[in-house]
Amino acid sequence: MKKLINDVETVLAESLDGFAAAHADIVTLGADRQFVRRRQLTPGKVALISGGGSGHEPLHAGFVGHGMLDAACPGQVFTSPTPNQMLAAAQAVDGGAGVLFIVKNYSGDMMNFEMAAEMLDRDHATVIVNDDVAVENSTYTTGRRGVAGTLIVEKIVGAAAERGDKLAALKALGDSFNKATASMGVALTSCTVPAAGKPTFQIGSDEMEMGVGIHGEPGRRRVRLTSADEIAAELTGAILKDLSLKPGQEVILLVNGFGGTPLMELYVMVNAARKVLAGAGVQVARYLTGSYVTSLEMAGCSITVSAVDEGTLALWDAPVRTAALRWGV
Amino acid sequence: MKKLINDVETVLAESLDGFAAAHADIVTLGADRQFVRRRQLTPGKVALISGGGSGHEPLHAGFVGHGMLDAACPGQVFTSPTPNQMLAAAQAVDGGAGVLFIVKNYSGDMMNFEMAAEMLDRDHATVIVNDDVAVENSTYTTGRRGVAGTLIVEKIVGAAAERGDKLAALKALGDSFNKATASMGVALTSCTVPAAGKPTFQIGSDEMEMGVGIHGEPGRRRVRLTSADEIAAELTGAILKDLSLKPGQEVILLVNGFGGTPLMELYVMVNAARKVLAGAGVQVARYLTGSYVTSLEMAGCSITVSAVDEGTLALWDAPVRTAALRWGV
Repeated sequence: MKKLINDVETVLAESLDGFAAAHADIVTLGADRQFVRRRQLTPGKVALISGGGSGHEPLHAGFVGHGMLDAACPGQVFTSPTPNQMLAAAQAVDGGAGVLFIVKNYSGDMMNFEMAAEMLDRDHATVIVNDDVAVENSTYTTGRRGVAGTLIVEKIVGAAAERGDKLAALKALGDSFNKATASMGVALTSCTVPAAGKPTFQIGSDEMEMGVGIHGEPGRRRVRLTSADEIAAELTGAILKDLSLKPGQEVILLVNGFGGTPLMELYVMVNAARKVLAGAGVQVARYLTGSYVTSLEMAGCSITVSAVDEGTLALWDAPVRTAALRWGV
Repeated sequence: MKKLINDVETVLAESLDGFAAAHADIVTLGADRQFVRRRQLTPGKVALISGGGSGHEPLHAGFVGHGMLDAACPGQVFTSPTPNQMLAAAQAVDGGAGVLFIVKNYSGDMMNFEMAAEMLDRDHATVIVNDDVAVENSTYTTGRRGVAGTLIVEKIVGAAAERGDKLAALKALGDSFNKATASMGVALTSCTVPAAGKPTFQIGSDEMEMGVGIHGEPGRRRVRLTSADEIAAELTGAILKDLSLKPGQEVILLVNGFGGTPLMELYVMVNAARKVLAGAGVQVARYLTGSYVTSLEMAGCSITVSAVDEGTLALWDAPVRTAALRWGV
């Protein structure tokens, strides 16, 4: 296993310490590194909290800050955070207007966020993100998985929270925007969880996993590596089928790297995906390209499409200041 | 070779098309994709132009925009752009106040930028970046190589150009800031140039290349993989020795991924490097962490330290709006 680490036992703690030092103008760590929170909270604002297993950086801690999350709870690599982490985060960042949990649909995350919500003696609601159209049910999931679309949901709902929307409205917005968001990914290589020390799965030198999950869990099928155009056609085609977009519909297009894919290739995929969308009469209003929801060093990418209207596009464009996403401020 | 591409002959063109589409609010492509330029130029401002082989994305096209470069010339992967590209870029973006070329010290880039400068019938000057302390002379270099520190030089000089500094002042600032900037890197894996189809170099499963160049060229020595702390101590130690910083000196710390290294590991390296710097009494005033100057999908990272004063720190903090670096606007 080739990694820039000191010890598999301390990699998460050291990484969080480095993250908190590097972004001390934006975030601070909770006690015992249970959560990453905004350094400055806004009183009276609904608090947005997400979290999940680590290894998907910059998700979620990289999206804590003005215009997005108030706190993120990092579990061990590919392992859910505990209910205690989520409870501690909620108590730390609730500004009196309640707490909205944004949870990717994995059984462990769902169970633990639910337990935290039950213990929480404050107004709260939960938005479940399940944007991955690749498979129904999966290794760690009942129903569809939550993947890269999560960051778009966090941005849209985060901007609405920042302008003062109330808890019920944010819950409704998150639920509806999740339905307007669909993703699918492909893996060219596996990844190695530090504590495991060996690749999560085996894959041939000419194979790819179509519809892969962000922990390397199986997708739709294992096939021979094809061209960027063919991959983009399959991923984007599945997304379009799911969303049933009308011609003229405006969308946000996210081409997301899984961690080991050069930016040059991601832009080849952007070019391929935009042609597929243009062919369907869909208009890309905003692009986001980069490795935002990763699977450690896995090579591959996912495509996410979110249907937007004037209102949600304005929320996307609203100022954001986090470690991983920043504009307008 | 596992890559998200259609054809090795068209990968650069398609990637540039995707890039230009995704960032159409900031950039536009020159004819025949000879250069990437700002969509909106500022009359009377000195034009900053950089460029070099592709495969280091987001360098340099990702740094074209307000507060940084006016144009970037992308060569084929790990191949210098031609003098004609540089000349065309200069003619396209010169706003009447002259052109400053910012060139990484590689023999091919140096020769071609020199030829372009000779052909250019406008005021011009050149800043050569040679921040890599690993080796004197190298596979493609006479003298030290130019690596990740280039982006910091581009940001500092870009901000000064934006506030209206003249050509001679910018040349002097670039030269002096290059001297205040030092870098060194380490590779854990090789990378594969699409047109070559096989890894640039071989490396054992327990080895690393200490002092590697950004094309995978040899560094100081091939050694067994050690801990993040030991790697950070060697890289940062070599940088500190080169810069001869006094206790209390403020610096910018860039921990740069080479393309295949998870962000989690980069933050472990941030944590390790900041301790080495603190031990030397050096104060990190600003952090930048991410894969900014890459070697395709190579695993590994470099550390860059730039000594700053009040003036250069203000230039670093000045607004920037590019595809890869954005704040304050």
